[in-house]
Amino acid sequence: MAKGASLSGFPEWLPEERVVEQQAIDTLRRIFELNGFLGIETRAVEQGSSLLKKGETSKEIYLLSRLQEVGQENDTPVEDRLGLHFDLTVPLSRYVVENSGALTFPFKRWQIQKVWRGERPQEGRFREFIQADIDVVGNGDLPEHYEVELPLVMVNAMESLRAFGLPKATVHANNRKLSEGFYRGIGLTDIEGVLREIDKLDKIGAGEVGRLLVETCGASAEQANACLRLAELSAFTGEELTHRFDDLCNECSVDANSDAYRLAHEGLSTLAMIVDESAKIRPGSVIADLKIARGLDYYTGSVYETFLDGAESLGSICSGGRYDNLASQGSRKYPGVGLSIGLSRLVSYMLHGAHAQASRISPASVLIAVWNEEDRGDSNRIARELRARGISTDVSPKAVKLGKQIRYADHLGIPYVWFPATADAEESVKNIVTGEQLPARTVSWSPDSVYAQQTVQCGGDNH
Amino acid sequence: MAKGASLSGFPEWLPEERVVEQQAIDTLRRIFELNGFLGIETRAVEQGSSLLKKGETSKEIYLLSRLQEVGQENDTPVEDRLGLHFDLTVPLSRYVVENSGALTFPFKRWQIQKVWRGERPQEGRFREFIQADIDVVGNGDLPEHYEVELPLVMVNAMESLRAFGLPKATVHANNRKLSEGFYRGIGLTDIEGVLREIDKLDKIGAGEVGRLLVETCGASAEQANACLRLAELSAFTGEELTHRFDDLCNECSVDANSDAYRLAHEGLSTLAMIVDESAKIRPGSVIADLKIARGLDYYTGSVYETFLDGAESLGSICSGGRYDNLASQGSRKYPGVGLSIGLSRLVSYMLHGAHAQASRISPASVLIAVWNEEDRGDSNRIARELRARGISTDVSPKAVKLGKQIRYADHLGIPYVWFPATADAEESVKNIVTGEQLPARTVSWSPDSVYAQQTVQCGGDNH
Repeated sequence: MAKGASLSGFPEWLPEERVVEQQAIDTLRRIFELNGFLGIETRAVEQGSSLLKKGETSKEIYLLSRLQEVGQENDTPVEDRLGLHFDLTVPLSRYVVENSGALTFPFKRWQIQKVWRGERPQEGRFREFIQADIDVVGNGDLPEHYEVELPLVMVNAMESLRAFGLPKATVHANNRKLSEGFYRGIGLTDIEGVLREIDKLDKIGAGEVGRLLVETCGASAEQANACLRLAELSAFTGEELTHRFDDLCNECSVDANSDAYRLAHEGLSTLAMIVDESAKIRPGSVIADLKIARGLDYYTGSVYETFLDGAESLGSICSGGRYDNLASQGSRKYPGVGLSIGLSRLVSYMLHGAHAQASRISPASVLIAVWNEEDRGDSNRIARELRARGISTDVSPKAVKLGKQIRYADHLGIPYVWFPATADAEESVKNIVTGEQLPARTVSWSPDSVYAQQTVQCGGDNH
Repeated sequence: MAKGASLSGFPEWLPEERVVEQQAIDTLRRIFELNGFLGIETRAVEQGSSLLKKGETSKEIYLLSRLQEVGQENDTPVEDRLGLHFDLTVPLSRYVVENSGALTFPFKRWQIQKVWRGERPQEGRFREFIQADIDVVGNGDLPEHYEVELPLVMVNAMESLRAFGLPKATVHANNRKLSEGFYRGIGLTDIEGVLREIDKLDKIGAGEVGRLLVETCGASAEQANACLRLAELSAFTGEELTHRFDDLCNECSVDANSDAYRLAHEGLSTLAMIVDESAKIRPGSVIADLKIARGLDYYTGSVYETFLDGAESLGSICSGGRYDNLASQGSRKYPGVGLSIGLSRLVSYMLHGAHAQASRISPASVLIAVWNEEDRGDSNRIARELRARGISTDVSPKAVKLGKQIRYADHLGIPYVWFPATADAEESVKNIVTGEQLPARTVSWSPDSVYAQQTVQCGGDNH
C-alpha cells in the first residue's frame, strides 16, 4: 500500500503498484470477454431499501447525505436515503429488472467496480475495494450448466493471474439443496440457522459449532454430530461424493424415499456434475466440500468459495453461488448464478506476498532529451513522430545537464534516452540499461520487444 | 441512457451503450500513456476538511455516515466526516503530498474515475459521472512549457474521440496573471470578484455582468466597460494577441511601467506561447480568449475551457489550468497544471447526439451451437479451443431448435454461428450476416477481420 495511505481501510497504491492492479483488471476483463460476457457499470449508489433487503453485509452500509442537508438527515427514513453499494450483485438484480425489456437473456455480464463497506476501521479490513464479478441471469429460468461453467471461467481467470504471483486456486463447491435435504432428512427445520453456524466452522472449530447447533438451532447432540459429519465430506469426483453422501445418509437413517432425500439428491447431482466436468477440463481445480455454507441468505443452489494454495489465511478470494429469488418483477423471476473476486485483497497479496512489480514506473519506452529550452520544439516533434507510431514517449522536463536527464529516465524506469541531432552529432538513442547507443530515426526506430510495454514481473516463489 | 435509469442524475448505460463508454475510456488511456503519463487511482472518499477547502464545487458534497451511526452523524463536525470527492484535483494534491518521498517529479499522472456532486436533482445535471484528468505536478517549481503541452495532449485526446462522433474541439485559453494585471492596471482591486462576474458572461450577457461589476466589485462604469472589452479579446496568434492587448491598455490608460502591466505581460507571454506552439502542431486547436475566467479560485496562471464546434450548448467539456498553491507541505509547494474531461456528458452526447453505437452487443465473434444437451461438452471444447487462440466465443444457452439459437446470436450481434460435427455433416461455421457457410477447424479458423473485435461506429453527421 502507498506509504501514506492515510485512511485505514481505503487502500491507495503508488503508480508502480497501480500498474499491477491495472494489468490484473485488464487480464480479468480479457478473460471475461473471451468467454462472451458483456461489460456493464452500475451507479455507485442504491436506495437504502434495496441495500437493506439482502445479505449479511447489509449492516455495513455507508449512507449519503448532501452537505446542504446536514442536520436534517434523519427526517428521511433509511429506506429512502441513498447508500453506497456493498457488492455488485444487488445492483445487478436491480439493473436486470429495470432493463429487462432491453436485454437478451440469459444475460451474461462482467463488472469490475469499487464497492464500500461501512465498517468500523479494523486492521486488515478494507472499507473500499474492487470487486470483479461475473453472473448469468435468466428470464424465468436458467439452465443448470451455468453452475458448472461459471466457476470454470473463474478458474481460468485465476490461472491467468498466476503471472502476477498468485498460487494455484481451488474452488470449493457445495449445494444448498444438498445441505437442506440432509438437515431435513435428519429432522432439523431451522435450515438457515444451521447454515449460519456451519459457516463459522473455520473460525471457531467443530466443538463450538456443535454446541451452537444444539443451543440455537434446536438440534440434538446426535443431529449436531450428523451436521458436523456432513461438513467433513469432500470429494474430487461425483462418484466418490455420491458414495460418501449415501453412506452418511444410511448411517444417519435418512429415508431414501423422503422428499428431503430427493431434494438432497437434486443438489448432489448438480454438484457431482460440477466436479466431474471441471476435472475433465482442469483436474484438481474444483472440489466438492460440504462445509461451504456462505453467509449470504439469498443462495438457493450451488455455492462456491475459492482458496489459494499456501495462502488460505487470505480466506475465500472468489465466492458466489446460484440465487433464484434475488430479482423478480411481479410473478416473473430472474434466477442467476455468479461469482465475485475480491480484487483489492488479491492485489495486496500480489504486491506484498508475491512481490509482483511493474517492469517500469512510466509507460514511456523512451525519453527525448532536450539540449536547451530553445530547442524543446525539436524534442517535442521527435516525441510526436514516435507517438504517432504507437511508441509511448516522454520528453525531458528541463534542459539540464544530460546526466540529470538520464537520471530522470532511470527513476521512472524508462529504458531509452533519445538524443536529438546537434551540429556535431547525428540523432541517436541510448539504451540506459545496456549502455548501447545507436543512430536512430523516428520513422523506423522501435524499442526492443522486451522494452516495448510496461509488464508485471514476479519476484515471489510462487511464480 | 438506459431506459430504466431510475435515479435522476445517476446515468447508467445498456451493455451496448457501455461499449461506447468503455472504448472511449480505453482510447483516452492509450493517448495519456502514449504521452508518458502514469495512471493512478485514488480512494473515492476524502476528509471533509479537504473537500471544503477549495473550489466552487465544495458546496456540492455527499457526506457519508455508517448505517450503525445513523442519528449520531451530527456529533461529528463536517470537517472530520468523510465525503465523496467532487473532482480528481483535490485528491491528487493530497496524494502528491502524502507520497512526495516516493514520487519522481515532475509527476505526470492520468486518472479516470467517477466523481460525485451532492446537488439537488435537476434536469440534465449528473450527480455521478466519470472524469478523465491529466496533470503535471512539480516539486517546488514547474516549468511553464507544461502549460503549452497539456492542452495539446487533450486536443490529441479529443481528436481521437472524433471516431466516436465528437465534432472538432477548440481549447479557449486565458491567463489569470493577464486578467489580474489588467484589472489592477485600470484601478480595480477585487480581482476574485471581477473574475467571478466575468465567468457569468455566457450565462447572463454583457449588460448584466457590467451592472454586477459596478454593484458588487466597486467598478466605475468606465472600469466595467474596460473589463468587458478585455473579455471580448480573442486571437489565434501571439502577435495578434499582443497588439490587441496593448491597444486596449493604451485606450484604458494602463501605465506600461507599472507592476500591474508587467504582471499582465507575464501572463500574456505564456498565453502567446500557447497559441503559437499549438498553431504549429494543430492550427486552430487553441485560441486565446480573454473572457475565460473559470469559477474555481485555485488557478494562478493559464486557464482553459474547451468547446465542441456545433455543440457549444454542452458547455466546456474539458477545463483546467495552472494552480501554484493547491498543494503544499510546510514551506514546500507543489505547483501543477492539469485539465479534466467530463466524460459522462461526452458519452451522453456520443450516444444521443452523434448516434455512436457498438458494432455488436456481445464481445463474442462466434456462438457455438449445441445439438443436444448431452453434447454440450463438445460445444464447450470447441469454445475452449477458440478462446485459447484469443477468439471471443459464446456457447448456446440451450439445445433448442437451430433457428432459435441463431436468433440468440443475432440479438447479441454475434456474427458467426459454429456447427459442431454430426454423423452426417462435418464441422462448419456460418456468417449469419452474409449467409456464407464454410467448413472450419478450431486450430485454424478466424473471423474476418471486420468481425474480429467489437468496435464503435458512428451514425451521426459529424463523422
